[in-house]
Amino acid sequence: MTGALLAEPLTAAAFRSFGDVIEAGGAPDMLINEGLCGRFHDRARLDFTDGRAGLSLFDAEARSWPCRIDMMERHPLGSQTFVPLNGVAMLVTVAPDEGGRPGAPRAFLSGPGQVVNLLRATWHGVLAPMGARGHYAVIDRIGPGENLEEYRFKTPLYVEGPQP
Amino acid sequence: MTGALLAEPLTAAAFRSFGDVIEAGGAPDMLINEGLCGRFHDRARLDFTDGRAGLSLFDAEARSWPCRIDMMERHPLGSQTFVPLNGVAMLVTVAPDEGGRPGAPRAFLSGPGQVVNLLRATWHGVLAPMGARGHYAVIDRIGPGENLEEYRFKTPLYVEGPQP
Repeated sequence: MTGALLAEPLTAAAFRSFGDVIEAGGAPDMLINEGLCGRFHDRARLDFTDGRAGLSLFDAEARSWPCRIDMMERHPLGSQTFVPLNGVAMLVTVAPDEGGRPGAPRAFLSGPGQVVNLLRATWHGVLAPMGARGHYAVIDRIGPGENLEEYRFKTPLYVEGPQP
Repeated sequence: MTGALLAEPLTAAAFRSFGDVIEAGGAPDMLINEGLCGRFHDRARLDFTDGRAGLSLFDAEARSWPCRIDMMERHPLGSQTFVPLNGVAMLVTVAPDEGGRPGAPRAFLSGPGQVVNLLRATWHGVLAPMGARGHYAVIDRIGPGENLEEYRFKTPLYVEGPQP
């Protein structure tokens, strides 16, 4: 669980068991607005238990390499989508669940314009814009009940940037 | 309903009866992620009748001034949120309902980073990125039933850009 980890490029295929990577590419699913607009339809596994979808803005401090991660958290009642507003890459560190705590972590670095949706109850590090302050529109669950679990590492995890 | 209309700057106050303008500013509602991230909480009036929230991408052709608007549409079953992915300003033309058709239109030009949420059943012109192709993440209703009404103007409406 500890030591150094190398960030991988973020792709939809590699990330699929943790969430969705949404970006335009290929042919749209449909043309709308009299042919002036392509729609890539319903591309995220949004999932809100006992609540509703809400839209919030996150304004997060810049992080730098190596990125130190002391804890992971998860939201048992809802997915969480991050839409980049100022094009700042996110380090997305995730882990499968192993008996109620994070298993072996993996780290991904997003590209400009990539939207990232974390599936409900996915262990993840806190939002980490790399190199500059990051602004994101976030779609997550609004509702009653406890929707945050945290797991603190005994020794921190360090994530290094992808090899050039 | 026809003739030339001048686009106004988009502000939350001016747009309130049509929808929400969401942008960071002032103090966040809460600090999360051990103080590293400000959260501007639950800022859009999302509203999905008989369906669920979905996330899609829109890729729309560039429009130019004066912007010709031949019709308006509305979605009786859900709100629709536009999150700009590449910073291209949107012309947002809206109208109050008057007996099932659009009343006197108003036009607003968004600024970089402004997120726009149209309230359920708000008459609006089709997505109009000004000057460049626009990419947007869109949160709208996914579900059965007819969620599109269109109203075609007898003579087109032309919208001029804001005065410099």
